[in-house]
Amino acid sequence: MPHISKKATEMPASPIRKLVPFAEAAKKKGTKIYHLNIGQPDIETPDTFLSAIKNNDLKIVEYSHSAGNESYRKKLCNYYKEYNINLEANDIIITNGGSEGINIALLTCFNAGDEIIIPEPFYANYNGFSKTADVTVKPIRSYIDSGFALPPISEFEKAITPKTKGIMICNPGNPTGYLYTKAELEDLRDLVKKHDLFLLSDEVYREFCYDGKEYVSVMHLSGIENNVILLDSISKRYSACGARIGALISKNKEVMTSALKFAQARLSPPTYGQIGAEAALDTPKSYFEGVKKEYVARRDFLIEALNKMEGVFCPKPSGAFYCIAKLPVDNADKFCQWLLEEFNYNSQTVMLAPAAGFYSTPGAGNNEVRIAYVLKIEDLKNAMICLEEALKQYPGTIR
Amino acid sequence: MPHISKKATEMPASPIRKLVPFAEAAKKKGTKIYHLNIGQPDIETPDTFLSAIKNNDLKIVEYSHSAGNESYRKKLCNYYKEYNINLEANDIIITNGGSEGINIALLTCFNAGDEIIIPEPFYANYNGFSKTADVTVKPIRSYIDSGFALPPISEFEKAITPKTKGIMICNPGNPTGYLYTKAELEDLRDLVKKHDLFLLSDEVYREFCYDGKEYVSVMHLSGIENNVILLDSISKRYSACGARIGALISKNKEVMTSALKFAQARLSPPTYGQIGAEAALDTPKSYFEGVKKEYVARRDFLIEALNKMEGVFCPKPSGAFYCIAKLPVDNADKFCQWLLEEFNYNSQTVMLAPAAGFYSTPGAGNNEVRIAYVLKIEDLKNAMICLEEALKQYPGTIR
Repeated sequence: MPHISKKATEMPASPIRKLVPFAEAAKKKGTKIYHLNIGQPDIETPDTFLSAIKNNDLKIVEYSHSAGNESYRKKLCNYYKEYNINLEANDIIITNGGSEGINIALLTCFNAGDEIIIPEPFYANYNGFSKTADVTVKPIRSYIDSGFALPPISEFEKAITPKTKGIMICNPGNPTGYLYTKAELEDLRDLVKKHDLFLLSDEVYREFCYDGKEYVSVMHLSGIENNVILLDSISKRYSACGARIGALISKNKEVMTSALKFAQARLSPPTYGQIGAEAALDTPKSYFEGVKKEYVARRDFLIEALNKMEGVFCPKPSGAFYCIAKLPVDNADKFCQWLLEEFNYNSQTVMLAPAAGFYSTPGAGNNEVRIAYVLKIEDLKNAMICLEEALKQYPGTIR
Repeated sequence: MPHISKKATEMPASPIRKLVPFAEAAKKKGTKIYHLNIGQPDIETPDTFLSAIKNNDLKIVEYSHSAGNESYRKKLCNYYKEYNINLEANDIIITNGGSEGINIALLTCFNAGDEIIIPEPFYANYNGFSKTADVTVKPIRSYIDSGFALPPISEFEKAITPKTKGIMICNPGNPTGYLYTKAELEDLRDLVKKHDLFLLSDEVYREFCYDGKEYVSVMHLSGIENNVILLDSISKRYSACGARIGALISKNKEVMTSALKFAQARLSPPTYGQIGAEAALDTPKSYFEGVKKEYVARRDFLIEALNKMEGVFCPKPSGAFYCIAKLPVDNADKFCQWLLEEFNYNSQTVMLAPAAGFYSTPGAGNNEVRIAYVLKIEDLKNAMICLEEALKQYPGTIR
């Protein structure tokens, strides 16, 4: 029997999914699980999107352009213009979800063995994409006590080696919910310019910025136009995760020409997702206002409930729909498994994502969890009742 | 400005697409182009598929399982059973088109620098997928004079080095239309077993086997169950190229566990494509009979028309919807470009794929073209009139 590759052996399993078998077993026992472990919102996809797919009149489901339908990319330019991002259709390649955009960006910009600096905690699949492209992740730690603000630039400077080829951020952040300030991004710009690095920015939570705080895109930073690659997705914007429509965006022509070769090899992004995504550009503002109001209410409820619990600390995030909470437990991995395997409260329990999987540094985040506030307040209430009770019962709770 | 990667520089541009700018220019001048250059059929997608998407009642377009919806994978097992391929749902990972399946298979099975032996001419994007995974393609030449039969096993033996990790075939073949015989596949099986290699087989044209000839899958070969990976796609089967639904299939548990990690990193295959694909499993047999009859008629017309032209030779393919023809020209690359740039006959011309792009060996296939018979006979007739006239007028025609 032939052996699998070294890369496949080393490919990290998704930290969110390793609890799935325990969740399945709990469900079989009749326990209701509140899923706060994954960014799958319960928000309805807008009718613009759904109707366009139901009313499409395709007779042949053909390949689209490898960069995505031109009509969609043109219309998308208007969308970005509302965020003061000026693009032409050729600055955009539509991808199979944001995931493929990151994959192609890494393949295009990084040689095997090159290093990418990423503030941690970060979206865990960045590890898998980096492994796929043979890129070495150099984490720089951000801390819960400062709400996961950008680490000092001096820390980045210390981490830069001759192999450093780029920096990646997620803004607003998954898993932290942190929204970078203009000053932080300008510091990053200066650094990127000084060392001539690529700056990859995953901004899929753009629509979810709260409390009137300003969303600043890497595309707003002047003087590094050829360094910047914007990674995007409609998954969260329209609650359309299964559409698998993302985008790789850059003003760097060399990057776009090369990225297109990878896109051509896989032929095209999905036709139906593009039909929905193009139509969804006409979604009325009221949809987003309603969604945002809902998330703010969920966040406010959740953060208050968490911080009221004994020994729990959770900074208030300004974006996305995640937060990271510090729990008074010996080990959050064990606690999250215990929640599914041993615990229930009135036949209910809660599924959380242990935060260690979002850190690269061994031992970091061991008493933290990521909570996605993707369920309605009624469900969040029950989930928090479960969590509070669980912390009372869990043998590893530190008092 | 930071530089792109070595891999991106070396990534081959799609040979089919490099003529696209010339085609666009020709269209602007008002020339009608018969597109025989790409495997985009004009056959309608079955109503089962289209209706399921139009009638879906999703309210939230959620992520599916990373391996694809279980209901789809279970039903797919029945489909394969009709071809005497016995599978369980866990032997199948649904991918973003066949392309992603090949990408994941290469990443899972091959280390950087490992070699894969592929009979040439082969589907050109195998080069891009191999480059992406740092796999070295070792071509073994098959020849037009034998209709592109499997090269002798002795040629494979000669090409095997300590770095050889696998063999890839396409059956029925793109770009050759060749259908491997049971004897050829059994020879391959013995070789694969002897050297303990992976055998990757792209069988997306399974539905298109003609003249009553037997389709033999690598999944039918006993004794190498752990060596075999089947790559599949619904793109051609249901004329649904834009759905982006393929599959990676293997009985090798280690391969499947590892492949799933790559699949989990990119979250899920497209939801709508899966809805269509699952429903399309109920497509009546009459649909395929009609489609097959149509392709046979097209093939018969095309092959006869080609072989009637002075200096043209085209073996009759037994599968898929491609053929490779030898033309009496100095250079097929130049000729195909000339067809678009300089030539028209009654404001019409034909777009063909130069075959050199399907060979890895430099200089091979320089006077050959791949022709996809994806248009109706009326269009094929006009295309062949154009081609015959072009061969008369082209300055590089060898008489």
